Amino acid sequence: MFDAAMAELSEKGFAGTNLEKIAGRAGVALSTLYRRWGNLTGLLQDLVDELTLDLSPPDSGSLDGDLAALGRLILRLHRHPVHRPWMDAVTAAAVHDPAARAVLSRTIMARIQRAAGVVEAAVARGEIPADTDAEDVIRMLAAPFYYRMYVSGEPLTDDLPERVAGAVAAAVRAGTLRRTAP
Amino acid sequence: MFDAAMAELSEKGFAGTNLEKIAGRAGVALSTLYRRWGNLTGLLQDLVDELTLDLSPPDSGSLDGDLAALGRLILRLHRHPVHRPWMDAVTAAAVHDPAARAVLSRTIMARIQRAAGVVEAAVARGEIPADTDAEDVIRMLAAPFYYRMYVSGEPLTDDLPERVAGAVAAAVRAGTLRRTAP
Repeated sequence: MFDAAMAELSEKGFAGTNLEKIAGRAGVALSTLYRRWGNLTGLLQDLVDELTLDLSPPDSGSLDGDLAALGRLILRLHRHPVHRPWMDAVTAAAVHDPAARAVLSRTIMARIQRAAGVVEAAVARGEIPADTDAEDVIRMLAAPFYYRMYVSGEPLTDDLPERVAGAVAAAVRAGTLRRTAP
Repeated sequence: MFDAAMAELSEKGFAGTNLEKIAGRAGVALSTLYRRWGNLTGLLQDLVDELTLDLSPPDSGSLDGDLAALGRLILRLHRHPVHRPWMDAVTAAAVHDPAARAVLSRTIMARIQRAAGVVEAAVARGEIPADTDAEDVIRMLAAPFYYRMYVSGEPLTDDLPERVAGAVAAAVRAGTLRRTAP
């Protein structure tokens, strides 16, 4: 089913496919898909949730090392044979389609929260200020990768994880990216 | 003509329109559009080039101040009644369409180069290391805005320019984001 969904998405994009076409391609009853997923975005959410991606946070012992490892993880996702087309399809659709935007946002926010553990670990080690905004640190780290992929259209080079991690870790050690008063 | 092109793009997206439909909407001969622009991406490039956007680099006297001003400029573009739908249409199309990607990339790279002047000015003032990678500093600044717009789907808050500028300026003062050997 996921194979048929990805093939449809790759060929036609989010706007050009639907559960009926995916059912036809997979050779299963449309009612089965409706019962299980309800709609295309439900299937897309399940698809990315079921990819066997190793998203466990790194534990290198330093903030620089952990942020660089997270950067390398983003590079791996960018080169993943299923995750990459999934991400492309959902990102393109999310610009104009609220349902696709909800799937993308939910997925990314869950990853930000999970990755934020490396910042909390650095706080616990006394490496950085206690009121560092852990999720904002992860956003600063991830953003330059996605900016190159989807905005400037530049390649993701192998030195990018260390480079961006070094900059973000230095910013945090200098006391920026603190939590603001609610 | 640009009004007709933007109306078409807003309603149908890049993949759903072409010069013929825009000519019809504008009530002009298709041959006129072909002569002037050749194709849809040519028209899109001209459209953004002719928007009266004030993209002149700020000159506040400090790197923090200039980067924050550039951040506020991105916020203004994000709220601009024509630039925003243009950016949305081109960004969505760029994921799968090489011609749209070329227009977007050319536009963004020209802006990065122009904005890099504020980093070179900070070098000239002796504020930051002489071999700072000016364009990479601008990427680090711009990326969190576009990440929120098109990836995490989070709002762009008014405190974002100062917050991101402070982090990036601190990273640069700490000696990160230097030019690497060619």
